Amino acid sequence: MVEPAAAPPENEIMEEKHIVRAYDKDLARLGSLVAEMGGRVEAQLGAAIEAVVRRDSAPAEQAIEDDARVDTLEREVEDQAIRLLALRQPMALDLRAAVAALKISHILERIGDYAANVAKRATVLNRLPPLAPAKAVARMGPPVRQMIKDALDAYADRDADKALAVWRRDAEVDELYDSLFREILTYMMEDARNITPGTHLLFMAKNIERIGDHATNVAEIVHYLARGAAIEAPRPKGDRTAYAVVEPASGRDAEG
Amino acid sequence: MVEPAAAPPENEIMEEKHIVRAYDKDLARLGSLVAEMGGRVEAQLGAAIEAVVRRDSAPAEQAIEDDARVDTLEREVEDQAIRLLALRQPMALDLRAAVAALKISHILERIGDYAANVAKRATVLNRLPPLAPAKAVARMGPPVRQMIKDALDAYADRDADKALAVWRRDAEVDELYDSLFREILTYMMEDARNITPGTHLLFMAKNIERIGDHATNVAEIVHYLARGAAIEAPRPKGDRTAYAVVEPASGRDAEG
Repeated sequence: MVEPAAAPPENEIMEEKHIVRAYDKDLARLGSLVAEMGGRVEAQLGAAIEAVVRRDSAPAEQAIEDDARVDTLEREVEDQAIRLLALRQPMALDLRAAVAALKISHILERIGDYAANVAKRATVLNRLPPLAPAKAVARMGPPVRQMIKDALDAYADRDADKALAVWRRDAEVDELYDSLFREILTYMMEDARNITPGTHLLFMAKNIERIGDHATNVAEIVHYLARGAAIEAPRPKGDRTAYAVVEPASGRDAEG
Repeated sequence: MVEPAAAPPENEIMEEKHIVRAYDKDLARLGSLVAEMGGRVEAQLGAAIEAVVRRDSAPAEQAIEDDARVDTLEREVEDQAIRLLALRQPMALDLRAAVAALKISHILERIGDYAANVAKRATVLNRLPPLAPAKAVARMGPPVRQMIKDALDAYADRDADKALAVWRRDAEVDELYDSLFREILTYMMEDARNITPGTHLLFMAKNIERIGDHATNVAEIVHYLARGAAIEAPRPKGDRTAYAVVEPASGRDAEG
């Protein structure tokens, strides 16, 4: 027991407690806005993929519509972060946390844009004859959704190990994209009527791969936030399609 | 003339001046880091385009290499912004300025990535037989470079009108991209051997169009910073290629 005479006056303790509580509340509010953004962009991607799998454009239309809410949430995160920085003048770790929230919300807004773009292209694909690699593109969806979810869980728990696990999984997604890129080009070379749907599938696959990259960026921010140090290993460079050359099968168009 | 007796003591004035000067110096340093990033990503894009026009991969290799320096600069901006927020506890407008620098540096880092990707694909194109739309893709370069330059000038001068002018020019770039998208697809449909270079050109054109979008994002941030209000008009949605369907000319592959 502390001797009552040695303690600061009751009203000072109350005031300090009050400030700390208000401050924690502000940080928690920032965290829950980011979590809401994460849940929404994850759902956007899920709906876009569902539209491809079921060849039903309704979930895609929803994903496109939902993008406005994600944009609004990004502005709310920014306003909240700036209010927190201005009113509470946080120090060191809390300052890092506020800046991390700003950065993550910006990344999530980008993910929402990519998901909406996948959804738009899904509505076009659904009006064209089915193309086989569409199913394979859809298979990129679940692992990338899981990466978003795990990155956000790592953020909520400030869990550096979980963040590192997300970061490591990006190479698989890149490999999936790499093999899909070649497969889609082969379909496009077989029949000129596959070129329009094939092009949309290429951009869809690329967008999903980019979403994986962005989830990886979130993981890097979380790792830094939790450990105060960047992930030491160099980031695996999985997507090599910028350098890819796919040749048409011999025989077709060989005279041109 | 102020009555000397009414003024604060000399040493207090000196101290305040000193703080203000150190603070202005920090903000100026932040501004010059952002300007350096801007100059570098603009040069990266210029080199990538030059590699396409001259069919010489040397400038492209340089653009790819330079990306690491841009990434480093982004981290420097972040460190500097956080130091400024922590040590000087800026208020209102200066807080907005620090957050704007963070956001713009993040966007410039993305622009650098896109420019490096254009450069990588240029090195592949230069190893394949020339494809006519390459020249047209290259023509997207100068107006987009100018958008980056003007957005950064607007930032340096806190010039809302200049920012608005950049913002308005994005629709032209989107239109250029839209017509190129269709042209490239037509080439791909004419000859299967055009599909690999055509695909790289599609992604290059898309990346340059995205750089234009990002320059527009910078313009929006600058407008807000200079005027304290967002640009009121809804952003023109110029790129409609996510919904594009291009049909092969009748006759070819019509039997498949």
